[in-house]
Amino acid sequence: MNMMMQTKLAVKKAPVAAPKTETTNITNGVDVNQMNDTVAAVKQNAELASFKFRIQNRWIDCGENRSHVLPFSAGGKVFAHKVGFTLTADEPEMLLGADTGANPVEHLLHALASCVTTSTVYHAAARGIKIERIESTLEGDLDLRGFLDLDPTVRNGYRNIRMTLQIKAPNASEEQLRELGTLGQRFSPVHDTLSKGVRVAITAERMA
Amino acid sequence: MNMMMQTKLAVKKAPVAAPKTETTNITNGVDVNQMNDTVAAVKQNAELASFKFRIQNRWIDCGENRSHVLPFSAGGKVFAHKVGFTLTADEPEMLLGADTGANPVEHLLHALASCVTTSTVYHAAARGIKIERIESTLEGDLDLRGFLDLDPTVRNGYRNIRMTLQIKAPNASEEQLRELGTLGQRFSPVHDTLSKGVRVAITAERMA
Repeated sequence: MNMMMQTKLAVKKAPVAAPKTETTNITNGVDVNQMNDTVAAVKQNAELASFKFRIQNRWIDCGENRSHVLPFSAGGKVFAHKVGFTLTADEPEMLLGADTGANPVEHLLHALASCVTTSTVYHAAARGIKIERIESTLEGDLDLRGFLDLDPTVRNGYRNIRMTLQIKAPNASEEQLRELGTLGQRFSPVHDTLSKGVRVAITAERMA
Repeated sequence: MNMMMQTKLAVKKAPVAAPKTETTNITNGVDVNQMNDTVAAVKQNAELASFKFRIQNRWIDCGENRSHVLPFSAGGKVFAHKVGFTLTADEPEMLLGADTGANPVEHLLHALASCVTTSTVYHAAARGIKIERIESTLEGDLDLRGFLDLDPTVRNGYRNIRMTLQIKAPNASEEQLRELGTLGQRFSPVHDTLSKGVRVAITAERMA
């Protein structure tokens, strides 16, 4: 069993079950020793870093649809989440929906916010910088003329996204705080995907 | 009150309250007359198409954080959702989290799936094509060496995203079905944002 497969729970229980030479090092809730073990394991075998994430979506009616998160793969092995996650999307009434959930472009902002936040928290932990609080506000500009096919010069998607991060880290120096503010842009997978773009291949087939 | 502000509920109630010359035209759950009214209103006043979507995110611990969807703006006016939506992100235990929610890159896949689905449903309705069912499966490839800062040639984000759409539309011709399969790529705001990229501006400040 490589270190990457070791669960947080198992690591937390270890000191109770048997004394270990390695002391626990939890910063910002992140088990830094386990993170270092993961880094060491990936350095030995790059294939362990190869992840595939998956979801399945089903249309309900009008603007409402739901996704179920499927098991993900890491290093060629499949892992299920502890419980099933269902994500609901809909449109507000103004956009002809029933408003039973956040709409797709709001979900996109959440994906970005959560990823920048987690990337900041994890990379701060790796640097030994304690964070007490992070809050952020995101705003995206979208011109519906793109979606409505009214003007070919107007893009369908967001024109801009702005994110304002507020970080409470009383022990961080000014230099460390400046660094904290850059960690999301440097490391977040969703930030990278959104800011550089990604190839999306869609295939469609008739359902019997 | 312009047509865009008129709610679906109000439109649905109208035939009961008083006879109208215009008949209801609901296809795929979408009120096509209301959609046409929106198009007409935006043609008259492009400013109505200018939307701003917003969320606020708060870090809980480790990989866990939550977003609250904030009111959105359309044509310079602010509109609240009917109820509050809270979206939870976390990481699986293998990625050092507590696995209390889908992770950020899974939320990103949901944003894409939901947007492609809704774009297909709405634009099919505009074309008079009835859809009975849509399901999709999405898979994204991510090499964790980017996030772990182990190889500068490896990107942090998704390398590829694949989406397979299954559409049940018994009355659609083969040509119409082929068209249905292209509507998401042609019109989805999230597909456009992801495939072409978007400028993301992050500012960070110290919280007292």
